[in-house]
Amino acid sequence: MPRPSGRRSDQCRPVHLETGVNKHAEGACLARFGETHVLCTASVDDRVPPWLRGGGRGWVTAEYGMLPRSTHTRTDREAARGKQSGRTQEIQRLIGRSLRAVTDLEALGEVQIKVDCDVLQADGGTRTAAITGGYVALALALRRLRDRGTIKTIPLIGQVAAVSCGLVEGTPVLDLDYDEDSGAQADANFVMTDSGGLVEIQGTAETTPFTEAEFHALMALARAGIADLCRLQAAALEAAGQTP
Amino acid sequence: MPRPSGRRSDQCRPVHLETGVNKHAEGACLARFGETHVLCTASVDDRVPPWLRGGGRGWVTAEYGMLPRSTHTRTDREAARGKQSGRTQEIQRLIGRSLRAVTDLEALGEVQIKVDCDVLQADGGTRTAAITGGYVALALALRRLRDRGTIKTIPLIGQVAAVSCGLVEGTPVLDLDYDEDSGAQADANFVMTDSGGLVEIQGTAETTPFTEAEFHALMALARAGIADLCRLQAAALEAAGQTP
Amino acid sequence: MPRPSGRRSDQCRPVHLETGVNKHAEGACLARFGETHVLCTASVDDRVPPWLRGGGRGWVTAEYGMLPRSTHTRTDREAARGKQSGRTQEIQRLIGRSLRAVTDLEALGEVQIKVDCDVLQADGGTRTAAITGGYVALALALRRLRDRGTIKTIPLIGQVAAVSCGLVEGTPVLDLDYDEDSGAQADANFVMTDSGGLVEIQGTAETTPFTEAEFHALMALARAGIADLCRLQAAALEAAGQTP
Amino acid sequence: MPRPSGRRSDQCRPVHLETGVNKHAEGACLARFGETHVLCTASVDDRVPPWLRGGGRGWVTAEYGMLPRSTHTRTDREAARGKQSGRTQEIQRLIGRSLRAVTDLEALGEVQIKVDCDVLQADGGTRTAAITGGYVALALALRRLRDRGTIKTIPLIGQVAAVSCGLVEGTPVLDLDYDEDSGAQADANFVMTDSGGLVEIQGTAETTPFTEAEFHALMALARAGIADLCRLQAAALEAAGQTP
Amino acid sequence: MPRPSGRRSDQCRPVHLETGVNKHAEGACLARFGETHVLCTASVDDRVPPWLRGGGRGWVTAEYGMLPRSTHTRTDREAARGKQSGRTQEIQRLIGRSLRAVTDLEALGEVQIKVDCDVLQADGGTRTAAITGGYVALALALRRLRDRGTIKTIPLIGQVAAVSCGLVEGTPVLDLDYDEDSGAQADANFVMTDSGGLVEIQGTAETTPFTEAEFHALMALARAGIADLCRLQAAALEAAGQTP
Amino acid sequence: MPRPSGRRSDQCRPVHLETGVNKHAEGACLARFGETHVLCTASVDDRVPPWLRGGGRGWVTAEYGMLPRSTHTRTDREAARGKQSGRTQEIQRLIGRSLRAVTDLEALGEVQIKVDCDVLQADGGTRTAAITGGYVALALALRRLRDRGTIKTIPLIGQVAAVSCGLVEGTPVLDLDYDEDSGAQADANFVMTDSGGLVEIQGTAETTPFTEAEFHALMALARAGIADLCRLQAAALEAAGQTP
Repeated sequence: MPRPSGRRSDQCRPVHLETGVNKHAEGACLARFGETHVLCTASVDDRVPPWLRGGGRGWVTAEYGMLPRSTHTRTDREAARGKQSGRTQEIQRLIGRSLRAVTDLEALGEVQIKVDCDVLQADGGTRTAAITGGYVALALALRRLRDRGTIKTIPLIGQVAAVSCGLVEGTPVLDLDYDEDSGAQADANFVMTDSGGLVEIQGTAETTPFTEAEFHALMALARAGIADLCRLQAAALEAAGQTP
Repeated sequence: MPRPSGRRSDQCRPVHLETGVNKHAEGACLARFGETHVLCTASVDDRVPPWLRGGGRGWVTAEYGMLPRSTHTRTDREAARGKQSGRTQEIQRLIGRSLRAVTDLEALGEVQIKVDCDVLQADGGTRTAAITGGYVALALALRRLRDRGTIKTIPLIGQVAAVSCGLVEGTPVLDLDYDEDSGAQADANFVMTDSGGLVEIQGTAETTPFTEAEFHALMALARAGIADLCRLQAAALEAAGQTP
Repeated sequence: MPRPSGRRSDQCRPVHLETGVNKHAEGACLARFGETHVLCTASVDDRVPPWLRGGGRGWVTAEYGMLPRSTHTRTDREAARGKQSGRTQEIQRLIGRSLRAVTDLEALGEVQIKVDCDVLQADGGTRTAAITGGYVALALALRRLRDRGTIKTIPLIGQVAAVSCGLVEGTPVLDLDYDEDSGAQADANFVMTDSGGLVEIQGTAETTPFTEAEFHALMALARAGIADLCRLQAAALEAAGQTP
Repeated sequence: MPRPSGRRSDQCRPVHLETGVNKHAEGACLARFGETHVLCTASVDDRVPPWLRGGGRGWVTAEYGMLPRSTHTRTDREAARGKQSGRTQEIQRLIGRSLRAVTDLEALGEVQIKVDCDVLQADGGTRTAAITGGYVALALALRRLRDRGTIKTIPLIGQVAAVSCGLVEGTPVLDLDYDEDSGAQADANFVMTDSGGLVEIQGTAETTPFTEAEFHALMALARAGIADLCRLQAAALEAAGQTP
Repeated sequence: MPRPSGRRSDQCRPVHLETGVNKHAEGACLARFGETHVLCTASVDDRVPPWLRGGGRGWVTAEYGMLPRSTHTRTDREAARGKQSGRTQEIQRLIGRSLRAVTDLEALGEVQIKVDCDVLQADGGTRTAAITGGYVALALALRRLRDRGTIKTIPLIGQVAAVSCGLVEGTPVLDLDYDEDSGAQADANFVMTDSGGLVEIQGTAETTPFTEAEFHALMALARAGIADLCRLQAAALEAAGQTP
Repeated sequence: MPRPSGRRSDQCRPVHLETGVNKHAEGACLARFGETHVLCTASVDDRVPPWLRGGGRGWVTAEYGMLPRSTHTRTDREAARGKQSGRTQEIQRLIGRSLRAVTDLEALGEVQIKVDCDVLQADGGTRTAAITGGYVALALALRRLRDRGTIKTIPLIGQVAAVSCGLVEGTPVLDLDYDEDSGAQADANFVMTDSGGLVEIQGTAETTPFTEAEFHALMALARAGIADLCRLQAAALEAAGQTP
């Protein structure tokens, strides 16, 4: 059965990881997965969170937001409503954990990197685009710190990228767009390293519970997709200058 | 290598699902997983959320909270701080999705069930205890609705229960308590039905990425543990009167 | 005229003050006045409020909350609404003042005790149950501090307990439950020490103003009731180990 | 022992109840108790609170605030801090209950009167000045409603006024100013009707518990003081036009 | 065409700047522009904002509020709603900038003056009354600091006052009251020094855009009006004691 | 004296108004004034604000936000802080008033257009870029409504654009960038229509008051600059399809 977009079941949307998109940030990447566009910036902050002060260890954290009209119909602005939704907080916690999983916080030293992932246009898979682009922004900011001499080497122990998969009318497919996501029976977000290590898994049955076999099929799709995304990350970082 | 509690790697803590613990709620269950105690109540509300009004469909939602001194050191009261943490919101969204996964919302009719899960004492695994006990509270509230004649049959399409697993010093173990959880390399929460269907999976690498094989070992432990929990749920409901 | 519960006008509900109900807190007591159940924990905090820092004096404060379904119909969760109600704040201020009235804050030294009173089930008189049980939790926490050697003696200058009284169809009665409270012409909460000293009085005419003579009748009932509660507190503390 | 102000122990500060102080409000009164100045306005609102809608009954409510520099040193503005303090809420609830105690809400009809009490300058006893002046503002607003023909008679079943008393160095004194209040051993606020009925009593031991005899002495002082305040209220209303 | 108030087009309402209206504040002024009454107090605070600490420079800031029934119909209390409106914030920022424009912050030293402008009764032009009265309160507070010896000379480099102007049915008029303001085609607020320097200009077309010539006509009216207001300020300060 | 950017005193930065930048919004424009980039979207909402309901009139409103790293150093996210700053509210109110000034709200009918202006990168002049680009987004959304047949003609009575001017080292200059803005003696924002009508003027003395002559010089610069911006708006709308 063909996908609405005409893609094969194991095919990602066209992915572009564009650097050089913000003149202020220490690192920046506009991650486009088809019509999903997420602007990721990495900012260096001298102050670590209170519970780390004086310990010599660094921190990586993330914040996530959607512009009000990034969505099909306009969503109320969280700043105007006065609070971030549960969904927003869940996503930004996921991004933060994913990026910390590949960062050597000891080697980073007492510095905090804040990665902001703001969705300019949404068409499904914003959190996985945010992780994939957030890694590039983070790597560029760390490179900047190394070039300034703040750190000797770039304290990354691998790459991290993410993709969603789902069961759509019984078929496991890779990288759901909004239309597919709305009708999926189950979906799962996978976060993995370039060496195939699992960092985060979030699977949810939307309509009916799924089987272990179905889950494995989703994971296999994700594994191949993430390997591709890691190659694109490496290429974007290569193009932006010296590889980390 | 022995676990701190002396349990086998595939052994849950002693679990008690006690009903009859709140005279006001339509359904209630005090779920104790060892030293983790979660009081779950299910309340029937005539009003469904705005987006469902007039559609004839019902809703099940959950809220989660921790008493300030449920934790090892006192945690600030969320009501006093003026907002629920990201962790709280993430957990209550998970509980709600899990309970909806086994509820036939069409058959429920335009009624909302609110399941409150309040942690009286925490020792790891509060969200999985909340789902397991929340199901019992929900089932009792639905039974009450049936006994009142509001609905003809109990609109549950299965049982749902949850357990956590983790990799501790390389060994997959079931139902982590706080001490194990703090030192785990990875942990995962599994939510499954009594027929083994997967409802939610949340896996997180705490220190280093984990492999697919390790993840499968965790899932196998969870599957057996959840089967036991479903038997305890059925027994608690049986003891509380007529089975749903 | 008989009371709905069949109690005499000067008769309290069955009161149980159960200790050993929380493994983390320095002091804890589950206070049950009939069907009103309040879980009280006392937590030791090294930091006093800002205005006391460096002065060598300690502080005792209280927080109060109701679980959403502690009430006949579900009450919205204050943490979800984003603020504590005026009633909640009024009650927790009352509890705090009552407990400070019997504590020698100089002798306590620069330490803060936070007493959390959380209503698990409400049937009238939650604030008086909270004060009565909160005292037990406080005394146990102070005993713990003495046993640790932080303080030499337990800095309590007496016991404090509380009870409500009201005018129901013209008759002064002791310890109103929810049904009586809803229909009372006037009610008053009395907080007294074991030696009969008055600590707090809050009297309110619900339907019509009351006379001075009526008020004295309420106070006489309270005096006897509080003497009984102080004996139960002493017994609970005795049973929990060495008396303070 | 002389009072700092030179007043006798049973002597109020000079009290002025000035009407005609706001051109917009249906009723207004500037209540001055010595250097304590509270501006009270009563506003008529066609909408009653949600729980009364359609029932034909009215409501009287109050709000209280302090201008930032009404106090000896500047207090942060509650609107800027984003919430009202517990003290503010406690006071405005007290004012509201006191005014409702003399209002026939059935006879008022489905209308709400909001009484705003804003402290322009504080020197002790702001809540009792607010109740005393708030009554005048309320009575004027009700008179306005009667003159408009909205109601046939003024639905007041009496006057209500309030005063504080306290134990200062062992002596019971009437109407504490800030200096006396800071050093009082105990203080109490009494709210009574012009016929001597008790509406609200709030007594608090500040340093040591007080005896029943002491409390009676405070109540006797209050009774005489409130009788005087009721005469001043009647005179202010008389001067403002036709008595209610 | 006559103005509703009978004033000439270049005529201000009667303006009174009354000092001595608050016994606690270092400086205070009740500014009355016709029926618009704004109570301004200036409070000295030893702490400057965080970004100025340790730099030896001072700061002047302002807060603005309206009593709920200062307006024709009652406005909700910002403290109860939990936030200040955009209008409030815009106005208090304007007042603060205006007052800082005539203060030598270096000469002030590391001290903060907080000017609170609270509208007791509103009839148009509250922000301009607030600036005009706020200057008097500020000058008095600075005089107090000089008299205490905290500063050697009063660090004011001029006077500042403000007035509104508007186009009403094609005619430029000075100092709009509420009735005129509601029907104006355009209005503008001007803040100027006593030597005619422009400090702030805010012009807004309410119904149709206005021309440059019309704008100049408004500015000419404002210039004359502000000169008068500066004379009234000087007189009020002179009357309050030694001129700054 | 040359400007840091090498521009002439009457020269704007390169301005680009790019349409087609958001696939969901009814109208969208990315406004770039040099390194200041503001993404403007216009969303059609069937519901007007409460005070307009049932009156047949429409509304245009605006919201403004800055991405955290749009600024030189990272600014805290307003959604995370839980409120919009005074500056944000002031700016979004200005944008809304400016756009309403050229919209015939009667002709629009009972529909609301929400214009979101989000700063992706800031280098001075974000509010004027937002107004200029916001007009293009609004015009496109209205064109869409006309093309759908919701309205017969586009209810715009002119174009509106905005630019800032300032006094830098005594010289009036057009369209300040961040570096100039930081050092300006005074700056002013002008909002005008394509026929030269004044819509909004906001002038502020940053260091010393300015003269009327200086202000006129700024207005003359603005007039010419806005005429150019209106030509660019017209060209962008022309390029995007049929002119409104």
